[in-house]
Amino acid sequence: MKCGERTYIFDNPVYVRSGYSIVGKMEGEGNFGEYFDKVLDNDLWGEKSYERAECKMHKEAVKGAMTKAGIEENELGLLLGGDLLNEIVGASFAARDFRCAYMGVYNACATFGEAMLLGSMFISSGFEKYVSCSTSSHFSTAERQYRYPLELGTQRTPTSQWTVTGAGCTILSAEKGEFNLKVSAGTIGRVVDMGVEDESNMGGAMAPAAADTIIQHLRQTKRDANYYDVIFTGDLGKYGKELLTYILNDEGYLIKNLADCGAMYYTDKQKTEQGGSGAGCASSTFNSFILQKFKCGDYKRVLFVPTGALLSKDTSLQKQTIPSIAHAVCLESC
Amino acid sequence: MKCGERTYIFDNPVYVRSGYSIVGKMEGEGNFGEYFDKVLDNDLWGEKSYERAECKMHKEAVKGAMTKAGIEENELGLLLGGDLLNEIVGASFAARDFRCAYMGVYNACATFGEAMLLGSMFISSGFEKYVSCSTSSHFSTAERQYRYPLELGTQRTPTSQWTVTGAGCTILSAEKGEFNLKVSAGTIGRVVDMGVEDESNMGGAMAPAAADTIIQHLRQTKRDANYYDVIFTGDLGKYGKELLTYILNDEGYLIKNLADCGAMYYTDKQKTEQGGSGAGCASSTFNSFILQKFKCGDYKRVLFVPTGALLSKDTSLQKQTIPSIAHAVCLESC
Repeated sequence: MKCGERTYIFDNPVYVRSGYSIVGKMEGEGNFGEYFDKVLDNDLWGEKSYERAECKMHKEAVKGAMTKAGIEENELGLLLGGDLLNEIVGASFAARDFRCAYMGVYNACATFGEAMLLGSMFISSGFEKYVSCSTSSHFSTAERQYRYPLELGTQRTPTSQWTVTGAGCTILSAEKGEFNLKVSAGTIGRVVDMGVEDESNMGGAMAPAAADTIIQHLRQTKRDANYYDVIFTGDLGKYGKELLTYILNDEGYLIKNLADCGAMYYTDKQKTEQGGSGAGCASSTFNSFILQKFKCGDYKRVLFVPTGALLSKDTSLQKQTIPSIAHAVCLESC
Repeated sequence: MKCGERTYIFDNPVYVRSGYSIVGKMEGEGNFGEYFDKVLDNDLWGEKSYERAECKMHKEAVKGAMTKAGIEENELGLLLGGDLLNEIVGASFAARDFRCAYMGVYNACATFGEAMLLGSMFISSGFEKYVSCSTSSHFSTAERQYRYPLELGTQRTPTSQWTVTGAGCTILSAEKGEFNLKVSAGTIGRVVDMGVEDESNMGGAMAPAAADTIIQHLRQTKRDANYYDVIFTGDLGKYGKELLTYILNDEGYLIKNLADCGAMYYTDKQKTEQGGSGAGCASSTFNSFILQKFKCGDYKRVLFVPTGALLSKDTSLQKQTIPSIAHAVCLESC
């Protein structure tokens, strides 16, 4: 049911049936290390290229989530997947190994939010029983695609973030899983572009989009921010999160329970500047730390808001500004 | 309602409210020339780069379809868009100019089929009243991204296709439009990879995926191919269409009413080898020729099957094979 501009309430229950996360070595040494299902020793994972390794991680995440959900391949109705590789080849090549339907989605690092909202729609409308939502990213594929060859050892700017090597997959279902957790509502983002041109400051570009979606969600659902234990943005990073707080305050929303997956992802010693980013940042955090917090009862309600900067290498070289988007997924214990 | 693996029947009516197509000069001189809404004199369209021109065409297609649908911007609920540019920046940058929700979708040249099926789901489930489904491609952006710099004047192989410079947008709605046409069913594709490695032979890579989806659709709906006036594939090209016919025959489906948007797109004099391709090929054909044929009563039922090759430049250079997909959209006069 639509409850106002861009916001839906899912009338029929959509349950989080299972979640699986797989990450690289450095991510395993970060703040969420103990929560991940699988931590790799080596980011190449025995493959010939980092791109192939990312694809393998993506596939492993989907298979891991299916195993934890206790479903066979013929029960899975649809794969909704995306990643940061050009033409989302991580998700598409991973989908070769599954016989079910596949739809590729892309909203940069907000892709996991998009997949979760679309998946919820398929379940709530009764079109599917089990839908897989997955995203991935890889530091070494993203660096060479969006920035510079790794071998160049380019200096990083203070506003930069570290692309997470990781993949996460959630299986949504009409039947309750181990988590007693449902997707109860969502707000689809719109594209916001406040004129930021610096592709090393994606937190700055994305913060206004996150603010727009959070405000829209709270207004449409007539909820106070305290309705949620935590409002988790995807990968604004430390500076981006500060900026989000500032924008929200400016709009009259004094929200105390904001957290950002990217800002929390790595330890200070890991020197990632503003923290983690990438399509695998929000999805690996959700399918490890956040789900575990729900499982142990620390969280009852979370607004999960993956954020994405919709640029490409070419748009930056062509001096375009950075459009951004954020999708809000409302998760509640039941 | 799901009527079997990967196939849905839309219980609540989903109408094609309007369609708009805009193409480049060469496309205007092709076989569908008289059917397009707008034909450009120059493929740069006053912009600094072909990428910006593609984005402008994408935006124009959405605006044109909204005007023809007679709806204001605040009535449009959701944009579902995608294109062939890395990180689908054509669709994402176009979405900056609209205030409504946006979700980026990507299944290469099958993207328009994916958008139409997702849009139909939003309408049929009552989540939205008006959804825009749009895709674009541009010869000059695709050549330099996927192949070689235009200035190099590389010789084209006999199996190659010509990326369509064009954009198409369809507005789906719960309310009937001028066409008396509805999306009554659909079959989501799965990824099929038969081991084709030659990125200049995308028709060959995609034909098995098209066959898979068409057979699945006919089986699940228990329909004969003659239920449809025409079964339109997206951009297999002439050789790919021949291959599709061969595969279907081999599987026991002697289908006489196959047509391919790509194979029909250009005249023989235009020397495009196998014909048109690109995410704008199926969408600009649908929103011009096919809609007009419905309007004048020549078509009553069409199965529209956009096809996509899910490769990237990097996967080809890394010697990967080409996974492909096709989504079937069932259109019926009402």
